[in-house]
Amino acid sequence: MAYHFASRMGKTPRSFIREILKTTEKPEVISFAGGLPSPSLFAVEELAAAAQDVMADAGRAALQYSTTEGYLPLREFIAERYRQRLGLSVDPDEVLITNGSQQCLDLIGKVFLDPGDPVFIERPGYLGAIQAFSLYEPEFRSVPLLDDGPDTGCLEAMLEEAPARLFYGVPNAQNPSGITYSEEKRRAVAAALAGTGTVFVEDDAYGELRFDGRCLPSVRQYLSDATVITGSFSKIVTPGLRVGWVAAPREIMDQITVAKQASDLHSNTLAQRVIARYLETNDIDAHIERITRAYRTQRDQMIAAIEEEFPEDARYTRPDGGMFLWVTLPEGCSTMRLLEIALEKNVAFVPGKAFYVDGGGDTTMRLNFSNAGEEEIAEGIRRLGAAIRTFIG
Amino acid sequence: MAYHFASRMGKTPRSFIREILKTTEKPEVISFAGGLPSPSLFAVEELAAAAQDVMADAGRAALQYSTTEGYLPLREFIAERYRQRLGLSVDPDEVLITNGSQQCLDLIGKVFLDPGDPVFIERPGYLGAIQAFSLYEPEFRSVPLLDDGPDTGCLEAMLEEAPARLFYGVPNAQNPSGITYSEEKRRAVAAALAGTGTVFVEDDAYGELRFDGRCLPSVRQYLSDATVITGSFSKIVTPGLRVGWVAAPREIMDQITVAKQASDLHSNTLAQRVIARYLETNDIDAHIERITRAYRTQRDQMIAAIEEEFPEDARYTRPDGGMFLWVTLPEGCSTMRLLEIALEKNVAFVPGKAFYVDGGGDTTMRLNFSNAGEEEIAEGIRRLGAAIRTFIG
Repeated sequence: MAYHFASRMGKTPRSFIREILKTTEKPEVISFAGGLPSPSLFAVEELAAAAQDVMADAGRAALQYSTTEGYLPLREFIAERYRQRLGLSVDPDEVLITNGSQQCLDLIGKVFLDPGDPVFIERPGYLGAIQAFSLYEPEFRSVPLLDDGPDTGCLEAMLEEAPARLFYGVPNAQNPSGITYSEEKRRAVAAALAGTGTVFVEDDAYGELRFDGRCLPSVRQYLSDATVITGSFSKIVTPGLRVGWVAAPREIMDQITVAKQASDLHSNTLAQRVIARYLETNDIDAHIERITRAYRTQRDQMIAAIEEEFPEDARYTRPDGGMFLWVTLPEGCSTMRLLEIALEKNVAFVPGKAFYVDGGGDTTMRLNFSNAGEEEIAEGIRRLGAAIRTFIG
Repeated sequence: MAYHFASRMGKTPRSFIREILKTTEKPEVISFAGGLPSPSLFAVEELAAAAQDVMADAGRAALQYSTTEGYLPLREFIAERYRQRLGLSVDPDEVLITNGSQQCLDLIGKVFLDPGDPVFIERPGYLGAIQAFSLYEPEFRSVPLLDDGPDTGCLEAMLEEAPARLFYGVPNAQNPSGITYSEEKRRAVAAALAGTGTVFVEDDAYGELRFDGRCLPSVRQYLSDATVITGSFSKIVTPGLRVGWVAAPREIMDQITVAKQASDLHSNTLAQRVIARYLETNDIDAHIERITRAYRTQRDQMIAAIEEEFPEDARYTRPDGGMFLWVTLPEGCSTMRLLEIALEKNVAFVPGKAFYVDGGGDTTMRLNFSNAGEEEIAEGIRRLGAAIRTFIG
């Protein structure tokens, strides 16, 4: 039978990363391609205890259907943490629990995007957002990312030409580049968007994973009625439980709630209660400190290895948070072609091209440092350096 | 700020049921409005033990990201059960794990529906499907539901006029009516759809909850390349873990996998492993037998009470499975207006109107019998009978 699929399916990119991951399943491959947190840092025993407690104290409630908005004590925790950490006033009613923060992007696409609507995204931009929004058939336009955040001159010119429905950005330790917006840039982005009708989607998956410097304000601080924040416990507690959230002004939240309900009724009841119990009974700040200490060290090891092994004119970011760094190789060094040589040498990465909606990024690559130990980093970067030398010839 | 939302949001009905549920939170209200399985039948201890075992044996894997398709041993269990229970040949690669079966409908809508595409649905039809598909802006057309399944004469005439992209149906213990398609009707539906390009979406949420009679074949048996089955552990194990699945031919599954990945990457890793462990270490057939025995009794109690308390010319279905029965009151007895009186008398139901995409059903109502004990059923139906008498005057 010849199937007829919706036109959106032809516009949604397959995840190049997942394709690479399939080739990296061999144990001899050192992979910097994925985006996994280090499983050695999971609080397995504490989460097992939380699960046991929830099942013992409230088993029937944890196994039953629950509200679309999500478990209230968890939403209260999230709201209170915004207050403490960022001085941000968010009501628990402005928070809805999702299946990981990827689902936030699907819901935001559903709520805001008609086919052909303009969506601005950073250049390079997060591939998962490109995929999620693509299902709603927008027209993507890229805002170049400079060392301290988006090129706001360019953003202003683009807005002048035609405001977007959404501007999607990752102000903290961006995926894929590792760049963090400066405080000035956050203000400037908000100022540029104010009054244009463009909603800023502030993906804050990595805000808590900050190694250096103080925690910077949310763009919502400056653009409270037009910022939708997405958050996640994936990077600071566990990704396997798929617990994320979206925080948005009430009028937007009403629409998101309808979309969530139509999409899957509600998020996993047990998982929400387990995370809430874990947060109540453990010191999450101490846990995050363990993670950031480890990742900071891994970042430093990777940078040291790159300095040793890569050509002198290779450039790289020095992320102050998150899980990725971004390398730009010398002119002509196509990372798509380099990947073939690298895989022969049993090392993997993601070619930067995957993160550009309008072409470009040929000589760039994303390297993940959160899920590799010291030896793997040293050996993997050595292999990658050798692959580059083979390629350059 | 005035927000601009996507046009699909204006076309998606708010769940009338959720609105009613809000008014039924008072403890004095007896509610037949919801669709909850009986929590007294949850295997709390066994699921707690499964969770503990999974965390002890494979904690880091259970807490990590995992594949979009889902946990292979669980997909194997589902495929094997199709073989044993229905003699149906389904490969584990034709199964993808979702966040409850509601998400299947969202993914199917994403994969198949462009705005304006015709979608056939039973009349009355499942509200959750109306909501999920509405987000993809189809044109709904209703196929009348007779006592033994869809009116296939009408279906054939509709297909002749214009084939649909999808025909969504619930052959086993339909929600809301409780009707089960006869074997002949299953063949006739498949025969009518064959060669038209219309895909049958076979929602099988209640197939395992069969009280009377033998288990009937899946429509996929007769229409293997154009049937997509949705299934769920919500009714036989637990809804709170949000573990459902979709089973579809490979070419459709490829598209569903892309849609699932863009929507939320993958389903809860821990929940999938907990369900799989529970199924491995417990006798699921014995558990299902406990549930169906209880629900059969509750159905009989509700029917006995209706016969006692409702007007003689009220008609009702006698479901041979599932969780709902369907009442048609005498001409002129609007259940929307009746609901107000019923709520004053502290009893709730869902007016049938909510299940019609094209109007009608004014004198019908859906009653849930799975989540009410003997006394509640007797007292609730007594109150409802009094409300009807008050209404009729």
